[in-house]
Amino acid sequence: MKIAILGGDGFVGWPTALHLSDAGHDIHILDNLSRRWIDTELGVQSLTPMDSIQERTRIWHAETGRRIHFKLIDLARDYELLKNWLAEHRPDAIVHFAEQRAAPYSMKSDRHKNYTVNNNVNATHNLLNAMVELDLDAHLVHLGTMGVYGYSTVGAAIPEGYLPVGIETMDGETVSQEILYPSNPGSIYHMTKCLDQLLFQFYARNDGLRITDLHQGIVWGTHTEQTRRHPQLINRFDYDGDYGTVLNRFLIQAAIGYPLTVHGTGGQTRAFIHIQDSVRCIELALKTPPARGSRVEIFNQMTETHRVRDLAEMIARMTGSEIAWLPNPRKEAAENELVVRNEKFLALGLDPIRLEDGLLSEIVDVAKKFAYRIDRSRVPAVSAWTKEIAPLINHDPEGKRLKSAS
Amino acid sequence: MKIAILGGDGFVGWPTALHLSDAGHDIHILDNLSRRWIDTELGVQSLTPMDSIQERTRIWHAETGRRIHFKLIDLARDYELLKNWLAEHRPDAIVHFAEQRAAPYSMKSDRHKNYTVNNNVNATHNLLNAMVELDLDAHLVHLGTMGVYGYSTVGAAIPEGYLPVGIETMDGETVSQEILYPSNPGSIYHMTKCLDQLLFQFYARNDGLRITDLHQGIVWGTHTEQTRRHPQLINRFDYDGDYGTVLNRFLIQAAIGYPLTVHGTGGQTRAFIHIQDSVRCIELALKTPPARGSRVEIFNQMTETHRVRDLAEMIARMTGSEIAWLPNPRKEAAENELVVRNEKFLALGLDPIRLEDGLLSEIVDVAKKFAYRIDRSRVPAVSAWTKEIAPLINHDPEGKRLKSAS
Repeated sequence: MKIAILGGDGFVGWPTALHLSDAGHDIHILDNLSRRWIDTELGVQSLTPMDSIQERTRIWHAETGRRIHFKLIDLARDYELLKNWLAEHRPDAIVHFAEQRAAPYSMKSDRHKNYTVNNNVNATHNLLNAMVELDLDAHLVHLGTMGVYGYSTVGAAIPEGYLPVGIETMDGETVSQEILYPSNPGSIYHMTKCLDQLLFQFYARNDGLRITDLHQGIVWGTHTEQTRRHPQLINRFDYDGDYGTVLNRFLIQAAIGYPLTVHGTGGQTRAFIHIQDSVRCIELALKTPPARGSRVEIFNQMTETHRVRDLAEMIARMTGSEIAWLPNPRKEAAENELVVRNEKFLALGLDPIRLEDGLLSEIVDVAKKFAYRIDRSRVPAVSAWTKEIAPLINHDPEGKRLKSAS
Repeated sequence: MKIAILGGDGFVGWPTALHLSDAGHDIHILDNLSRRWIDTELGVQSLTPMDSIQERTRIWHAETGRRIHFKLIDLARDYELLKNWLAEHRPDAIVHFAEQRAAPYSMKSDRHKNYTVNNNVNATHNLLNAMVELDLDAHLVHLGTMGVYGYSTVGAAIPEGYLPVGIETMDGETVSQEILYPSNPGSIYHMTKCLDQLLFQFYARNDGLRITDLHQGIVWGTHTEQTRRHPQLINRFDYDGDYGTVLNRFLIQAAIGYPLTVHGTGGQTRAFIHIQDSVRCIELALKTPPARGSRVEIFNQMTETHRVRDLAEMIARMTGSEIAWLPNPRKEAAENELVVRNEKFLALGLDPIRLEDGLLSEIVDVAKKFAYRIDRSRVPAVSAWTKEIAPLINHDPEGKRLKSAS
């Protein structure tokens, strides 16, 4: 298959490109490299030393003889460029990662809120619009987030995208309908993924586009089978307070003897998936496109759930780290249950990598190996969700308070 | 109250500005005048001769001694200008009409789809973002549409915004929740209003903004008490295939002896409200703001529903017009029921103007009076909803087929 990977230079995009190239597909990365620009803006960098996309694809070719093509296109701003590229290449499938994907970054300031909304909505809409304009019947696989559901506390299992509801008619009968699971986003970033869902629903209904939306949990891990083949194929690893996910930041903290920072009670339950499983899920989704005219196919792309404090305790046991309890910069429930249905990928043959089995190697092979590159002042999460929360957060750019605690 | 009216130069915005000015409020119109630019793009004009916004406000001052202020701001593009204006003026309330509001225009081409999404989402988001940034606790009243619900055929009455659903927990209990009524937009334009709903829900929950969303039906009628005061205060009247609503186009057709063009079976049921009632509803909504921290207040702003073919027959009876049956450019159900709850405005004292009582004066006082200005070639609706529908539509720019039929 000819596959376009939009955002193929990113954290999940890059290993997906390698995985699918390795499986024999003709891979074309389209990316505006905005994630590298944001590193520059924030003055942070990947823990792992990461080469340019041009160099990475050159190495991949040298190692495997396979080409991964790269084209610099800004999906949100360059509609005509995108349309012309699609018209020329007419890919069989499109994997869409090309959105700003950090909740804390989306909440940093009004400028970051506007950027995230404008970038994500226009990127997705430009793509859908161009596909219809070109009569391009490619299968679109989008990386969404578990966060569209919010983190419900009602104790119900989160289904794969749709919720059956009964609507009472004027005659007193109850008619059953399946609706998109009601969205309850926890940040501007998560909200844009909810907006995406409505865009997908409309274009599937009105124009018959074939779309799969993957509601992904927090991705952990660094290496996949392909990124291990050469040091310069290594994936990025974010540990800063904006782009580093909770687990990555715990690993870094453990590696450098910094206390594990838990926000609030740590009672937040989150869904996780290993990067290797993530790229396998994307391949499975590509193999099972929905029929033209059917509704958007939705998978929950996660393999296990954990409370944040349980994760911290697990890592503390493995490494002897201490735990530091900090105020929560997010506006969210202090404690939540999270039960997620993921039978669809399991039925397609996914055999998950378990967090408990893989964590220690992440600490040794990645976090400790590159610990010399860590800027400890960038580990704390400082983007506040509201103006009321901002003054409560521990602004401690030098990490002094934690340094003395450790 | 100091009230900012965003889009206050438009079809409902202008009479709202006059109505609220007349009621003693301090009115500030912010508008980018895009609706006038679109007239220029399409080569059409309001049936009624419409003065510039500067001239209109001058006349209003001369007639009443009251000032309506005007500021040219593009909400979607000029975030900083908007923020600075809000910081300086800090209005008590904001009425938000500033979106591209025609479904056929939103479906004309890929450029129009992108424009509508980009303009409407950014206009609404910029406003919400600036309000939070400025700690501006103004009551935001937004003009939404009945079209967010889609036109359900299940035979249930459409509630005012929220639907109670039961969610089954892991323990087998059923927990009741009220969710935003599941959206089912019929065009890109309608979809943007669904996206707005999610933006409002997020900002009400995260930042406590006080928001009222008015799900309005099709507005008919031209005059309000205030626009009648001087010929140069007259409201706009759109009759072209993109901006003219079904009823306006029937009135024009009746006035010039053109057959009434019904698309499809005419079995589409739509909700209607008179322009005078619309401005009264907005005033009622402004008087009853939701409390800070409560959910978005949603009203259905409509007073009666009719099938399109029943409307055509009503007008044919009044005027002796013929009816012409044409293919439907929209992708929609041929026939639908529509029952809408609107008890909330009735409880606040709304006493509706009935369509059957007001139609004849619209034909005589507006359509026939200005019939000399009609360009009959612009009456047909030609924006097709999908590529499959486009070739089926009667492209008849000269109106020849209908001319010979009449």
